[in-house]
Amino acid sequence: MPKVDVCLSPELYKLCDQKNSIVVVIDILRATSAICTAFEFGVSKVIPVDSVEKAQAYKDKGFLVGAERNGEKLDGFDFGNSPYSYTDPRVKNEPVVITTTNGTKAIEIAKDNYQVVVGAFTNITALCAWLADQNKDILLLCSGWKGRINLEDSMFAGAVVDRLLKDSRFNEQYSDAALAAQHLFLLAEDDPQIFLRNSAHRQRLSNLNLKEDIKYSLQVDKTEVIPVLKNGELIRLETVSAS
Amino acid sequence: MPKVDVCLSPELYKLCDQKNSIVVVIDILRATSAICTAFEFGVSKVIPVDSVEKAQAYKDKGFLVGAERNGEKLDGFDFGNSPYSYTDPRVKNEPVVITTTNGTKAIEIAKDNYQVVVGAFTNITALCAWLADQNKDILLLCSGWKGRINLEDSMFAGAVVDRLLKDSRFNEQYSDAALAAQHLFLLAEDDPQIFLRNSAHRQRLSNLNLKEDIKYSLQVDKTEVIPVLKNGELIRLETVSAS
Repeated sequence: MPKVDVCLSPELYKLCDQKNSIVVVIDILRATSAICTAFEFGVSKVIPVDSVEKAQAYKDKGFLVGAERNGEKLDGFDFGNSPYSYTDPRVKNEPVVITTTNGTKAIEIAKDNYQVVVGAFTNITALCAWLADQNKDILLLCSGWKGRINLEDSMFAGAVVDRLLKDSRFNEQYSDAALAAQHLFLLAEDDPQIFLRNSAHRQRLSNLNLKEDIKYSLQVDKTEVIPVLKNGELIRLETVSAS
Repeated sequence: MPKVDVCLSPELYKLCDQKNSIVVVIDILRATSAICTAFEFGVSKVIPVDSVEKAQAYKDKGFLVGAERNGEKLDGFDFGNSPYSYTDPRVKNEPVVITTTNGTKAIEIAKDNYQVVVGAFTNITALCAWLADQNKDILLLCSGWKGRINLEDSMFAGAVVDRLLKDSRFNEQYSDAALAAQHLFLLAEDDPQIFLRNSAHRQRLSNLNLKEDIKYSLQVDKTEVIPVLKNGELIRLETVSAS
């Protein structure tokens, strides 16, 4: 029976049995929420890069590029990591390059895995339905904040654990990290915004007009797209299945 | 105002602002519970060592030595890491050397800090009262299991966070790890044994007759001793204060 595990920080990734797992990269505030939005609004692909230099090189070649560090959009780029930026009509049928403080780094460390997909509340139902059908171990990789754990990613991982464990195809013998995340989700479930009220990330970014982004990122099922990593680029999962 | 933070795994220790903090090392099942018991039963000092080789060298010199790996007492040593072993009358007024899978390694990585003390449910009230009086930042370091987080250490860290934040001398702007640990404690508070029922550690050690050890280790306030690290050895805190 496949198992579902949680890695609460990229710093713990090396300790997780992962090479043969499907890795779900999670950065709720805001990279993976933004990536799902970009696909919802018709982006052809998302190219995650782990440095501003690489992002700039793409920008110089004429690509649309999103670049964020420490919660703020970097000057000279098209977007930051607010999901709202990616509702821009310019993204339709175009590739977009993204670099962020945490999320794109988590994608980078997981890239040699069996398969890497992107998860957010905005695609949670489609994601869980697909994961349940794969008959593979699943590792939920929280991007955290500069290696430290955060509540929003842990809570989302817990939401996925909670859904998958209701499926009899999954093994219930899971890790304490998965249990802890599930507990946090069950506490947050009724009102995630209230649950995150005291979170470090929220406080860190409170002066960055993040309130609307948080509200957006906590909405479930805005899209059925599951972004999947293929040759270093994120594309729609159905494109892979059809190929 | 001092702050209280939680490091959920020794693997995350390097990310925590720690050099000027008091570090509380936590390994509820069972190293720090066992160490507190040893002091309760009159040990003169506890010498934590991070390898079996070092433990053997002490054994060869005639010391009483506890050695545990993967939950089991190692052959040829006096004790494992069950708290009950340290109720042995032989420990009274004697030094005891201890090496364990996780707890003594956490002590080792924290040893260059401002101050290192040992925490367990069995000394929690004395510990929290002393911590509250120090006017220093506090880092609660969970030993985990081979680098991965575990429920029992996280829950204990959350119990200390919960107590300290009720003290107006502490700053409430704390980390998501501290918030998460506090949430877990509040869920566990009414019946920690039930809370740990599904934990990985409990399942891992279920065939090692651990039930009584868990029950013992979840008892609060069996002792007022706070073991503190001084020149690589754990001694009673009052000895330090009086010196």
